[in-house]
Amino acid sequence: MVVATQSLEELCINSIRFLAIDAVEKAKSGHPGLPMGAAPMAFVLWDRFMRFNPKNPKWFNRDRFVLSAGHGSMLQYALLYLAGYDSVTLEDIKEFRQWESRTPGHPENFMTSGVEVTTGPLGQGISNAVGLAIAEAHLAAKFNKPDSTIVDHYTYVILGDGCNMEGVSGEACSLAGHLGLGKLIALYDDNHISIDGSTDLAFTEDVGKRFEAYGWHVLTVEDGNTDLEAIHKAIEAAKAVTDKPSMIKVRTTIGYGSPNKANTAGVHGSALGGSEVTATREKLGWEYEPFQVPEDALNHWRKAVERGAKYEEEWNKNFADYKAKYGAEAAQLEQMLSGKLAEGWEKVLPTYTPEDKADSTRNQSGKCLNALADVVPGLIGGSADLAHSCMTLLKSSGDFQPGHYENRNIRFGVREHGMGAICNGIALHGSGLIPYGATFLVFADYMRAAIRISALSHAGAIWVMTHDSIQLGEDGPTHQPVETIASLRVIPQLTVIRPADGNETSGSYKVAIEAANQNRPTLLALSRLAQPNLPGTSIEGVAKGAYTLSDSDGTPDIILMGTGSELQLCAGAADKLRGEGKKVRVVSIPSWELFDAQDAAYRESVLPKGVTKRLAVEAASSFGWCRYIGSEGAMISVDRFGVSAPGPVALEKFGFTVDNVVAKAKELLG
Amino acid sequence: MVVATQSLEELCINSIRFLAIDAVEKAKSGHPGLPMGAAPMAFVLWDRFMRFNPKNPKWFNRDRFVLSAGHGSMLQYALLYLAGYDSVTLEDIKEFRQWESRTPGHPENFMTSGVEVTTGPLGQGISNAVGLAIAEAHLAAKFNKPDSTIVDHYTYVILGDGCNMEGVSGEACSLAGHLGLGKLIALYDDNHISIDGSTDLAFTEDVGKRFEAYGWHVLTVEDGNTDLEAIHKAIEAAKAVTDKPSMIKVRTTIGYGSPNKANTAGVHGSALGGSEVTATREKLGWEYEPFQVPEDALNHWRKAVERGAKYEEEWNKNFADYKAKYGAEAAQLEQMLSGKLAEGWEKVLPTYTPEDKADSTRNQSGKCLNALADVVPGLIGGSADLAHSCMTLLKSSGDFQPGHYENRNIRFGVREHGMGAICNGIALHGSGLIPYGATFLVFADYMRAAIRISALSHAGAIWVMTHDSIQLGEDGPTHQPVETIASLRVIPQLTVIRPADGNETSGSYKVAIEAANQNRPTLLALSRLAQPNLPGTSIEGVAKGAYTLSDSDGTPDIILMGTGSELQLCAGAADKLRGEGKKVRVVSIPSWELFDAQDAAYRESVLPKGVTKRLAVEAASSFGWCRYIGSEGAMISVDRFGVSAPGPVALEKFGFTVDNVVAKAKELLG
Repeated sequence: MVVATQSLEELCINSIRFLAIDAVEKAKSGHPGLPMGAAPMAFVLWDRFMRFNPKNPKWFNRDRFVLSAGHGSMLQYALLYLAGYDSVTLEDIKEFRQWESRTPGHPENFMTSGVEVTTGPLGQGISNAVGLAIAEAHLAAKFNKPDSTIVDHYTYVILGDGCNMEGVSGEACSLAGHLGLGKLIALYDDNHISIDGSTDLAFTEDVGKRFEAYGWHVLTVEDGNTDLEAIHKAIEAAKAVTDKPSMIKVRTTIGYGSPNKANTAGVHGSALGGSEVTATREKLGWEYEPFQVPEDALNHWRKAVERGAKYEEEWNKNFADYKAKYGAEAAQLEQMLSGKLAEGWEKVLPTYTPEDKADSTRNQSGKCLNALADVVPGLIGGSADLAHSCMTLLKSSGDFQPGHYENRNIRFGVREHGMGAICNGIALHGSGLIPYGATFLVFADYMRAAIRISALSHAGAIWVMTHDSIQLGEDGPTHQPVETIASLRVIPQLTVIRPADGNETSGSYKVAIEAANQNRPTLLALSRLAQPNLPGTSIEGVAKGAYTLSDSDGTPDIILMGTGSELQLCAGAADKLRGEGKKVRVVSIPSWELFDAQDAAYRESVLPKGVTKRLAVEAASSFGWCRYIGSEGAMISVDRFGVSAPGPVALEKFGFTVDNVVAKAKELLG
Repeated sequence: MVVATQSLEELCINSIRFLAIDAVEKAKSGHPGLPMGAAPMAFVLWDRFMRFNPKNPKWFNRDRFVLSAGHGSMLQYALLYLAGYDSVTLEDIKEFRQWESRTPGHPENFMTSGVEVTTGPLGQGISNAVGLAIAEAHLAAKFNKPDSTIVDHYTYVILGDGCNMEGVSGEACSLAGHLGLGKLIALYDDNHISIDGSTDLAFTEDVGKRFEAYGWHVLTVEDGNTDLEAIHKAIEAAKAVTDKPSMIKVRTTIGYGSPNKANTAGVHGSALGGSEVTATREKLGWEYEPFQVPEDALNHWRKAVERGAKYEEEWNKNFADYKAKYGAEAAQLEQMLSGKLAEGWEKVLPTYTPEDKADSTRNQSGKCLNALADVVPGLIGGSADLAHSCMTLLKSSGDFQPGHYENRNIRFGVREHGMGAICNGIALHGSGLIPYGATFLVFADYMRAAIRISALSHAGAIWVMTHDSIQLGEDGPTHQPVETIASLRVIPQLTVIRPADGNETSGSYKVAIEAANQNRPTLLALSRLAQPNLPGTSIEGVAKGAYTLSDSDGTPDIILMGTGSELQLCAGAADKLRGEGKKVRVVSIPSWELFDAQDAAYRESVLPKGVTKRLAVEAASSFGWCRYIGSEGAMISVDRFGVSAPGPVALEKFGFTVDNVVAKAKELLG
C-alpha cells in the first residue's frame, strides 16, 4: 500500500522508523523491530507530553525518559536527534554500533547526553525508573511548598515483554505500587513477540491483571500502530491518576511497516536486509534517502528546542521566586544540585581508640550512616527487609511511604535486585541524592547485575553488605559468603572495601560518600560479630587501600596482611612473633582497588618486593590473592563452602585463630 | 489459656512446635516463628496427604516437599523426625545449628536425607519446586501408558512472604502457570510479617490476584492456626484442579502460641528466651520436657512408616507389571534411576581436524547437545529466550508445553534466575534428568544465586553460557563479559570450562555430562564468532583442565597460555616466534578447576616452575591469573568494561591479535 501523502504526524513517526532502519542496516547489526513498532507511542510521548530542554539535557526539572527495552536504542537515538539534542547528530547515527561512537548498541548514559540510565539487560530500566520516580517524589516532598512547586516532573518508560518477564521488574513494580508513585508512567510495547518467537511460547500470563495486583493503574491502547489519539488519551488518563503508577498496554506490531518481516521474531534483532528495506520504504511511502529526514518533520520535531527553552526559563523564574521566599531550602537544593558536599562534612565520622568497646563493623556502619544523615541531606536508602540486621535505619527520619515521601528510610522488602536497580535510578536522577542499598553480602549475588550497572554507568550508590564471612555462623553455607568478595573485586569501576574496625569503617564511608559524589559506586563488606578497635587503624589509611598497621624496626622478616575481621588475628600474631624476636610488619588491606590506584612508590613502601615471606589472612577465598602473596607466600583462607555452626566455632575450625596465624607464619619463616 | 486435654491432632501439631522452640532455644539461634505458625498446615499435609517412605527417602515415586521458607528449617527437621526418617534423630535436633550436625541452619539436601533441595536464600525453593514438577510431568508423559501409571506424584511447597517478594519466584511461577503444572501445590504461610515487621511496610500487593494472573488456581484458608478441616479441604480442592498449579493462601499467626511474641517480627528469627518458652508452654498447655514428644503423638506420626512401606510396595508391584508389558521403557527408566549412563555414550561427541570449517563454540555446543540427546535420554533444557543465539534447541524434540510434556526443549522466557532455580529442581528430582540452562555469559549475573546453589547442593546441571567476551561486539559493554568468568571460577564446586574449538567443546560436554551424572554442575563459556579447529586440541585434554597444545624441543623459552577464542592467537604467535628460533610452548587452559584437580607431577609437566616467562592471553579480566603467570609473566587481558563495536574491531583495539601476542612475548623474552 503506497501512501500518497503523509500527514505531518506520519512523517514524524516514519522519520523515527527510517533512521532506525537505516542505521541498523548500515551497521549490519541491531534491533529494528522495536523502533518500528514503538515509533507512534514515542512520537506522541515526546512531541506532546514530555517536558525537557534538548539544549540542556541536565535541566533539573525535566521529565525523565527510560527506554527499558534498551536493545531498541535506535529509537532513543532517533528521538534525541529529531528533538534537537546536540549529543546525537546524523553522523553519530551513521556510526551506530561502531567503536567509540555516541550511539552504542544499547543506551549508555555515560556516552550519550540525554540518556538517563544505561539499559540493555532487561528489567533494569523499568526498575531504574522506579528509582527516578522515588527521587522525584522525595525531592518534591522535601522542597515543594504550598505556594511554590519547583519539583514536578514525570518518569516515562517504554518497556516490552522481555522486561516484563524479568523478576527484577516485578520486584520494583510491586514496590512502586505499594509506594503509590503516581508520576511513573510506563508504556508497554505489547507486541507478543520476543527473541524466540511468539509470547505464546512461554509468556501467557495476564500482565495487566498482575499490575493491577501490584496496585498500578492499567490501561490499554488497542491499536498502537495508527491510533495516535488513543495513545494521547491514555497518557492523559495516566497522568490524571496521581496516587498510582500507570501501565499503558499499547498493542503494536513489531517491525511495523516491513511487509515480510513485521510481526516476526526475525525483525527483533537483525537488520532488515537491502531488499526488505526497499520494500518497507515502498509500503510506507517513504521516498527519502537513507538518513534523510523530511524538512517538515524535522521542523516540527525541533519545536522541542523552543518549547524546552521556555520550560526551563519558566522554571528558573519560578525557582527565583522560591529562593526569595525559602532561602534555606533553596540553598540546600542548590548545594545538592551543585554536586558539592557540605564543608567539613567528613568531620562527623566517628573515630575510635582501642579503649572504645569492640563492635561489629555493621554496627559501626550504622553509626556512620546516622552521623552522615545530618550533613549529607541527599543520603537516602534502606535494606532488603534486613533493617535491624544491616543496621541501616536512619533514626532521624521516618519511612519513605505514601504521604511521607520526605522520609529517607526506604523499605525495599525482600527484593535485592529491585533494590539495586532502584538505587541506580535514584543516583542517576542527578540531583545529589546518594542512595544506599543493604543486604547480606552473600545476597549480592541476587543483585549482581545491578551492581555491575552501577559501576558501568557511573551511578554513585553505596552497597552496604553485612554478614560478610563464615563468621556469621549458624545460618550456614547458603548465607556464608566465601567467594563473594573476590567476585565483586573483579568488577571494574567498583570500589570494594572491607574495614577492620571503627576507624576503618569511618574511613570506608569517607571514601564511599566522596565516590558517590563523583558518580562512582562503593561496596562495603561488614561483619556480623564484634571486633576490637585496633591500634594503628585510621580513616586516612582506608583511602590508600592498604597501609602499614604496625611494624618492627628494619626490614620485616615477614608481612602479615589482613582484612576486616581477620586483621585482629594478624595484629595478635605479630605481637607473639615479635615477642620471639621476629621482625613483623602488619598490613591492613581494606581495598584492592584503592591500593591499585596509589603510585608505585607508595605500594612498594607498603609491600616491598624484596620481602617475599608474606601471609595473608582473610576468611574468604584465596582467589586472586596471589597478587599480594607472591610465589613464596601463603594464606589462611576459606576455599570451600562454609558450615552451619556458631561463628566463633566456624572461625576456629577453619583456622582463623592467632595461634594458627603464628604457626603458619613460622612455617614460612622456616 | 490452659488447654485441659489436647486432641490427638493438637498433640501432633504442638509436637512440631515445641521441637522447634526447644531446638532454637538450645542453639540460641534460629527461626521459631514459622514452625510455630505453619505447624498445622504441615501436619495436615504430611499426615494426611503426602506419600513418601520415611525409610526410603529416595523412593522414586514419592511426593516431593520443599520448605521454600528455608529459615523455618526446624519445621522440616521436626517433620522428618516425627515421620520416622532415620536421618533426623532427637540427638540431631538437639544439635541444631552446630558444627557438622545433620540439622544445619537452613535445609541442605546434601547433609540431611529427606531434604530435597537446599533452601535459605528466599525464592529459590518455590522455583526449584517448579523444576521438580516439570520433572514429574516430563517423566509421566514419557513413561506412563494408558493402562499403566508409574509416575504420579505431587510437589508441595511451603513458602512465605519473603519468597513471594523475590523476583526469581515470580519468574518461575509465571512459567509454571503457563505450563499448567497441575501437580504443583504451594501453601503460602500468609502471616503478614517479615523480618522488618508488618508486610504493610513494603508488600501490599494482592498476591492472590497476581497468581491468578499467572494462571494459577488460588484458594484461601482464613484460619490456618486452628481450622484443620479447611486446610484439608483446600488441599483436596487443589489436587482436584489438574491443569493449573495451586496456591493456597493460609492465614496464620507467626509464632502462634507465644503469648507475648506471636505476630511480631521478633519471633521470626530469634529464640523465644527462657521465660517466653515457659509462657508458651503454659499457653498451649504443653507439659512435656524439652525435646520430649508425647507417646500418642509419636505413635500417630509414625504411622507414616507403615503407610510409606505400603506405598512403595504397591508401586513396586505396579512397576513389575509395567516392566512385563513395556520392557524397553522400563529398562530406560531403570537406567536413568540407576545413575548409569549408556555404554559408549561419549562416542557420539564429534571430533574435528583443522580441515573442518572454523565455527563458533556456541554452534559446536549445539551440535554436541543434539548428538547427546540420542544417547542421554535424561537431557532436557533450554534457554532464557535465546534459543537461536545459544544454539540450544534439540532438533529431535518439540517444546515442553501443556499437552506435550514428553518434549525436551524448555522455553524459559526472559527469566534467567528462574531458569537456574528450575534446572536445580530438575536435577535434584534425582531421576537421572540432566538439565541445561542457557543464556549470554554476562547474564550469569542474573542467575548467580542459583548457580551457587547448584554447586553447593550437588545439582548436576549444565550452564551453557554463550557470547563470552568482547568478541560479541556491537551489543556493547552491558553484554560483553569481562569479569564474569573470573567471578564464576571462584565459586567452589563449580567446574568452569572455556573451550577453544570443536574438540575442546566436545571435551567440555564429556566432562559436563559425567559431572552431572555425579551430581556436579558445570558451566561452559562459549564464543559467538567462529574460531578455527586447532591442531593439537583434544577431548582428553579438556578433562585435564590444561594441556600442552604444541611445543618446541627442549625447555621452552616462553609459555603462551590461552583459553577459548584466544588460544588461536597463541598458536599463531608460536608459529611466528618459532620461525625466529624461539622455543615456545603453547598451553591450552580450558578449565582451572580441572587442572587444579590433577596431581602435582602433571601440573608441573605442563607449567614447569622453572619456566618463568609466561604470557597469558584471554579476552577477560586478569584477576586471578597471577597463579599461572607468576611474577615474571604478563597477560593480554581486558581489565575494563568493553565497548560497542564489531567484534573483530573490539578484539583488535584491545590487543587481541597475533602480532600483539608476538610483541608482548618478545618484551618478556627481552
